[in-house]
Amino acid sequence: MQQYFIKGPCQNPIFIKDKETVKHMFQVMRLTDGDQVCLVFDDGIKRLAAVSDSAAHSFTILEDWDQSVELPVDVTIASGFPKGDKLEWVTQKATELGASAIWAFPADWSVAKWDGKKLAKKQEKLAKIAQGAAEQSKRNIVPEVELFEQKADFLKQVSRFDSVFVAYEESAKTGEQAAFATGLKACQPGDKLLFIFGPEGGLSPQEIQAFEVMGAQTIGLGPRIMRTETAPLYVLSAVSYALELDENNKHDVRRADQ
Amino acid sequence: MQQYFIKGPCQNPIFIKDKETVKHMFQVMRLTDGDQVCLVFDDGIKRLAAVSDSAAHSFTILEDWDQSVELPVDVTIASGFPKGDKLEWVTQKATELGASAIWAFPADWSVAKWDGKKLAKKQEKLAKIAQGAAEQSKRNIVPEVELFEQKADFLKQVSRFDSVFVAYEESAKTGEQAAFATGLKACQPGDKLLFIFGPEGGLSPQEIQAFEVMGAQTIGLGPRIMRTETAPLYVLSAVSYALELDENNKHDVRRADQ
Repeated sequence: MQQYFIKGPCQNPIFIKDKETVKHMFQVMRLTDGDQVCLVFDDGIKRLAAVSDSAAHSFTILEDWDQSVELPVDVTIASGFPKGDKLEWVTQKATELGASAIWAFPADWSVAKWDGKKLAKKQEKLAKIAQGAAEQSKRNIVPEVELFEQKADFLKQVSRFDSVFVAYEESAKTGEQAAFATGLKACQPGDKLLFIFGPEGGLSPQEIQAFEVMGAQTIGLGPRIMRTETAPLYVLSAVSYALELDENNKHDVRRADQ
Repeated sequence: MQQYFIKGPCQNPIFIKDKETVKHMFQVMRLTDGDQVCLVFDDGIKRLAAVSDSAAHSFTILEDWDQSVELPVDVTIASGFPKGDKLEWVTQKATELGASAIWAFPADWSVAKWDGKKLAKKQEKLAKIAQGAAEQSKRNIVPEVELFEQKADFLKQVSRFDSVFVAYEESAKTGEQAAFATGLKACQPGDKLLFIFGPEGGLSPQEIQAFEVMGAQTIGLGPRIMRTETAPLYVLSAVSYALELDENNKHDVRRADQ
């Protein structure tokens, strides 16, 4: 069943105003009176709804579904600006894999230089990709997308998280392999985790040090060298495996906020 | 340090014959006498080598490196032919994530129809992508790429594996989440694992049944719906996390063949 995210609180009946949503519903999907879809408002609850008046773009809410597909922890991915359209791709895949937020920031060794208007346009494009992927993956939320123009503004956000991890190739090289799993096992349901990734050239020693001073833990992601856009997908897959599939680690407690 | 795969057994000195390798070494990288690279022959051992005569494209082997970055189990990914160039992308990412082999087969619901010449050309292209990604990720082997023209030929290979898993969306929907982790924990180092994935439309009930008759285990990959090209990356990341990073499951025994 087609799923749509509708901005705002739940209303019954609900009149759809967003032009692109209306277009997809009534032109692409050609919904007519009585057709059913799943609507998700800002509260993240999935609701069965039926078209009550296709000319007025209105729906009646039929029932709430007690169905959450969100990870038991909030995972924010923060990448140093990578080259080209890698962030588009990371946004789509990270949304499928359950990320709560996808951030990027200008790292010391970022080759890509984005600012002002270009950055705003890119953020808008990524937000659309996140919404489309969240609808396809039947997520309860659309991940937040934020591109920081200044690294300092990103650094100010770091203290908001319960745990901060930095993917660091040197950790992998020195054979450090336990920190990621140890860190994950210490998490509680609902915890807010931040994972920081470098751009193609990696993070600078100054950046690593700054993150460590702020309490971040450097982690290795196995012995193979991954491209910058692959590492976030490894992390999200591992978080899902550890906390959703592996009975040894699984949190049976539902998230407090769901 | 630049790494190259050289077909055949180790020879000292070694004269490089492969045209593309020669081009990359002496035109792109402009190696001159005495420059060092890492060469990997068919035995998968990394060796430090120095150019002995750049005009003759010859190298002297200086030392063997006892360095394996391979997963403790052999993982073969087999996808129903997906649309467009998704397989190119899966090949690159699965190589970074440690796959031993990347296979594809015409599934009942594959929209893509590839055969004969087109299939051979695609396989050649994918093999090159796998080699490039294996060099970048510093793998000890280049994953084997095989596109089966007939599903029957693929099915004949299934009995070669120690364990066969089928990623099945219906498993996820019914809340089945434990089979993947349980299966992984039963693995021994060096085991050969096959993971089968459907194309965009999924696997048909007949295919699921055929795989089950052959001893395959259906597994869920968490509650979110992933695109066909994302699921293999989830599996490879989870295998790495479970067997390389998580102390609870980690196989301390090195692979018998390394």
